[in-house]
Amino acid sequence: MSADIVVKIGGGEGIDLEPLLSEIAEMVRSGMRIVLVHGGSHETNELSGRLGHPARFITSPSGHTSRRTDAQTLDIFCMAYCGRINKRAVESLRRSGVDAVGLSGIDGGLWTGERKKAIRSIEDGAVVIIRDDFSGRVTDVDTGLLRLLLDDGRVPVLTPPAVTIDGVAINVDADRAAAMTAGALQARELLLLSNVPGVLRDIADASSLIQHVSEAGVEAVRAAGEGRMKNKILAAEEAVSMGVERVVIGSARGAGAICAARQGAGTVFTGAAAC
Amino acid sequence: MSADIVVKIGGGEGIDLEPLLSEIAEMVRSGMRIVLVHGGSHETNELSGRLGHPARFITSPSGHTSRRTDAQTLDIFCMAYCGRINKRAVESLRRSGVDAVGLSGIDGGLWTGERKKAIRSIEDGAVVIIRDDFSGRVTDVDTGLLRLLLDDGRVPVLTPPAVTIDGVAINVDADRAAAMTAGALQARELLLLSNVPGVLRDIADASSLIQHVSEAGVEAVRAAGEGRMKNKILAAEEAVSMGVERVVIGSARGAGAICAARQGAGTVFTGAAAC
Repeated sequence: MSADIVVKIGGGEGIDLEPLLSEIAEMVRSGMRIVLVHGGSHETNELSGRLGHPARFITSPSGHTSRRTDAQTLDIFCMAYCGRINKRAVESLRRSGVDAVGLSGIDGGLWTGERKKAIRSIEDGAVVIIRDDFSGRVTDVDTGLLRLLLDDGRVPVLTPPAVTIDGVAINVDADRAAAMTAGALQARELLLLSNVPGVLRDIADASSLIQHVSEAGVEAVRAAGEGRMKNKILAAEEAVSMGVERVVIGSARGAGAICAARQGAGTVFTGAAAC
Repeated sequence: MSADIVVKIGGGEGIDLEPLLSEIAEMVRSGMRIVLVHGGSHETNELSGRLGHPARFITSPSGHTSRRTDAQTLDIFCMAYCGRINKRAVESLRRSGVDAVGLSGIDGGLWTGERKKAIRSIEDGAVVIIRDDFSGRVTDVDTGLLRLLLDDGRVPVLTPPAVTIDGVAINVDADRAAAMTAGALQARELLLLSNVPGVLRDIADASSLIQHVSEAGVEAVRAAGEGRMKNKILAAEEAVSMGVERVVIGSARGAGAICAARQGAGTVFTGAAAC
């Protein structure tokens, strides 16, 4: 039996993990098989600043944004994502009686990917090529290790970085890593929760939420995505194309956020099986 | 089949993990089943300083030293031990073709322990009682999770903190955690490697090394241990009492340090089975 749900919780500013972990504990108690994926961008930004190595970001010509990840940034990234956030999340879940196991994508080669050889970045209006970045994208998920844990009644708590086949740690987008994980496990649902309520036609207007991608049309959804939302939409499309029945891009904030997203609060992508 | 060897590498100043990880990779390639445990004290001290929360230490009336671990220190501890050091070690092992999986003692309740309710500390000659420390000692090792990984051909890379049965993360001595792990797995050997060559009768004189505990007598060894060495001697005795055949307290420095320790460089404790 595979995972029922992959829940990805973003690491943006203003997200309180505690109520979300309580919801996950309840879901686990009710018998659901869950894989949790978390981010840590805001905390990494803060830690970078405190350690005198301020966060920098790359915007690609197509508008995708990503963290500029040199070796020192990757160390700081590991401290925040794999160190503080992952271990405190596992601790909290254990306090709620959940047998959580925290892993990065490096561990066991769980998330294996390709390092970007050259990144095109827009700087002051010009395209610059960056060649020494430790970033990339997940191409393979070691479902063997995940199933070993899930079948043993444990809850994997996953976080970037990933690792190349040659053993180089790479920063990867956690939304897309979660999507690959959901797809590889043939999960029924993928929830991508962050500090936005979903895909908005007008980013300044919460009432412009696109509720159902199947109704709005995928082109309209893609057109509405800006900045980090572009990655979430791509992730949702990838998961659906890999056979995940239902993906929701929704809010991680407010009481019962996971339950609300499962009930359709946010932007809902449905795959063939759910139509 | 259980683990052959548990190797603990200290986190003191001047220890370079890379050559040690290369040795471990060679041992794994030769078919040995290894569990690696690592510390991170020096890096935690440095990070604490950089983050404006300098490291403090407690000396008990009996001379044992331990880190003063308030909530903020435990966060920093997780960043250094579980974040940077653990993930970079796993990355390095993977680069050598080893299927390493990094876990803290919190994950899966791998190292479950008891939190100290009150710690007696000598401050300015007086005994002070500290009640809000997040520290303790490991009482149970989840060998199920370790065997799951070992039987699957993976190499567990373990590090503190541990966790209480109620789900509170606690700082534990990594030497004693390694000893509990070796004992619980009925490992043949435990190596406790750090920046000292073994138990010295005179800490200023490297030629005063006690080579065989069985010849010197355990009382002489205990009498020679000062500061952190007290914990290592206690760890070695605990491992032997749990059935580990051979424990070596040795150096983590220099070429072939692991091989040298296995051949008896350092202070050797032998259990009944090896006599």
